[in-house]
Amino acid sequence: MSNFESAGRGIGAPVGRRRPGKVYLVGAGPGDPELLTLKAARLIGEAQAVVYDHLVGDGILALADPSARMIYAGKEAGHHSLPQDRINHLLVELARSGLRVVRLKGGDPFMFGRGGEEMEELLACGIDCEVVPGITAACGISACTGIPLTHRDHARAVMFATGHLKDGSVDLDWNALARPNQTVVIYMGLGALDVICRELTGHGLAGDTPAAVIHAGTTARQVVVTDRLDRLAATVKRAQLGSPALIMIGSVVSLHALLGRTRHADELALTA
Amino acid sequence: MSNFESAGRGIGAPVGRRRPGKVYLVGAGPGDPELLTLKAARLIGEAQAVVYDHLVGDGILALADPSARMIYAGKEAGHHSLPQDRINHLLVELARSGLRVVRLKGGDPFMFGRGGEEMEELLACGIDCEVVPGITAACGISACTGIPLTHRDHARAVMFATGHLKDGSVDLDWNALARPNQTVVIYMGLGALDVICRELTGHGLAGDTPAAVIHAGTTARQVVVTDRLDRLAATVKRAQLGSPALIMIGSVVSLHALLGRTRHADELALTA
Repeated sequence: MSNFESAGRGIGAPVGRRRPGKVYLVGAGPGDPELLTLKAARLIGEAQAVVYDHLVGDGILALADPSARMIYAGKEAGHHSLPQDRINHLLVELARSGLRVVRLKGGDPFMFGRGGEEMEELLACGIDCEVVPGITAACGISACTGIPLTHRDHARAVMFATGHLKDGSVDLDWNALARPNQTVVIYMGLGALDVICRELTGHGLAGDTPAAVIHAGTTARQVVVTDRLDRLAATVKRAQLGSPALIMIGSVVSLHALLGRTRHADELALTA
Repeated sequence: MSNFESAGRGIGAPVGRRRPGKVYLVGAGPGDPELLTLKAARLIGEAQAVVYDHLVGDGILALADPSARMIYAGKEAGHHSLPQDRINHLLVELARSGLRVVRLKGGDPFMFGRGGEEMEELLACGIDCEVVPGITAACGISACTGIPLTHRDHARAVMFATGHLKDGSVDLDWNALARPNQTVVIYMGLGALDVICRELTGHGLAGDTPAAVIHAGTTARQVVVTDRLDRLAATVKRAQLGSPALIMIGSVVSLHALLGRTRHADELALTA
């Protein structure tokens, strides 16, 4: 049985006239609990129900009131989790029962977080809803790896895309990504790393462009692998990195050697 | 006289053997003090000196210890402020005198914040340095205007660029920015809005692409102006918006009408 099913049965809200509840779509940031915003921390502490994703760590969930309902909504690739329409339905039911609900999402809700779709659903059902931004993975990982997203000598623009596979292929605008003088950050792209590196060089990005894959960025388990673009996929495979992982490509990655503080003993510096 | 000058004279650190200080380059987020991270708030409270930019609000500075030195480093277009090399020198001097220094920057230090350059300078001078990410303007403003940066039905990629004028012209990769199915966010582009809109349509982006300029996003003074791309510059001029302002372009802007909560009485909805 899932929390969702019991949620549908009433959730212990007082019987009779209920004040409508509210749903906060809250960004939990990249992993480190101290990278939560003050607002997110306050709302988690005040919540009567917290619906959280796979990437939200224990240190963050510990901020919730002990009496709050904690509901796991999952979304780990290949693992059991609630499908999106059931998550939406759950949020609506919780709010309708009068609860103050926090929907906790890794990173930022409006950056590859499907926050827009959840908000549309909630508003369509008449549920009051507010979005609270979070530190997106790119910014959190940029800071703790010493890889600036922009830099006058390297990149005056940065592009964010998702490498999530759809029917086994990656649907990206390679011509836009393969341009010089910009930083490219790809979320959820580890499974397609081979294809991404091949397509980028195939579309004209230099094979010796510095690139990195960062596993579990900002947490104690962080691992950084750097190599030139045309060797990155093989190097990452040897290092046996798993999800979650962020891909960063561009001349700024070369600054990691200088600006990257060796925060964790397990950091793997395989720079070419 | 400036704080910088007195800083050069010793800053009240104990005479004799000094433990080296440390500089934290801290992102202050988009304006709303509650959008600071827990880590940023802690470090500001613990700092012995705070060197802050123009866009860092009073609510954030109020978190500093009353005994901390507060030093304004400016950077408002056209106003007196410290040039970058003097800011770098100031940070080095403060740290060498043994102080725990927070360098507070609007948004995120590594996203158009010149954090990389400051960190390079500090490390070159042997000063320990750490970067703390902040909510970048795009994420903060996205959340509070109901304009998701990505959305399955609208944009699967997002591009951030700066519209800062250099010698009166804007040096941007127009072909990359004018592509469909992505969101474009331009920081510090208000002064070049005319040029930006003209170049984007000239490079093939549809004139009826939804677009917005947001003034003072996430603060009580926030103003949102939306219109189609080919009319945006004229509409913004009529509304007499000033800096700070963020430009958002792409189909996601159309969601503002649905997802944007009217947070402030002065919100200006000039949607076409």
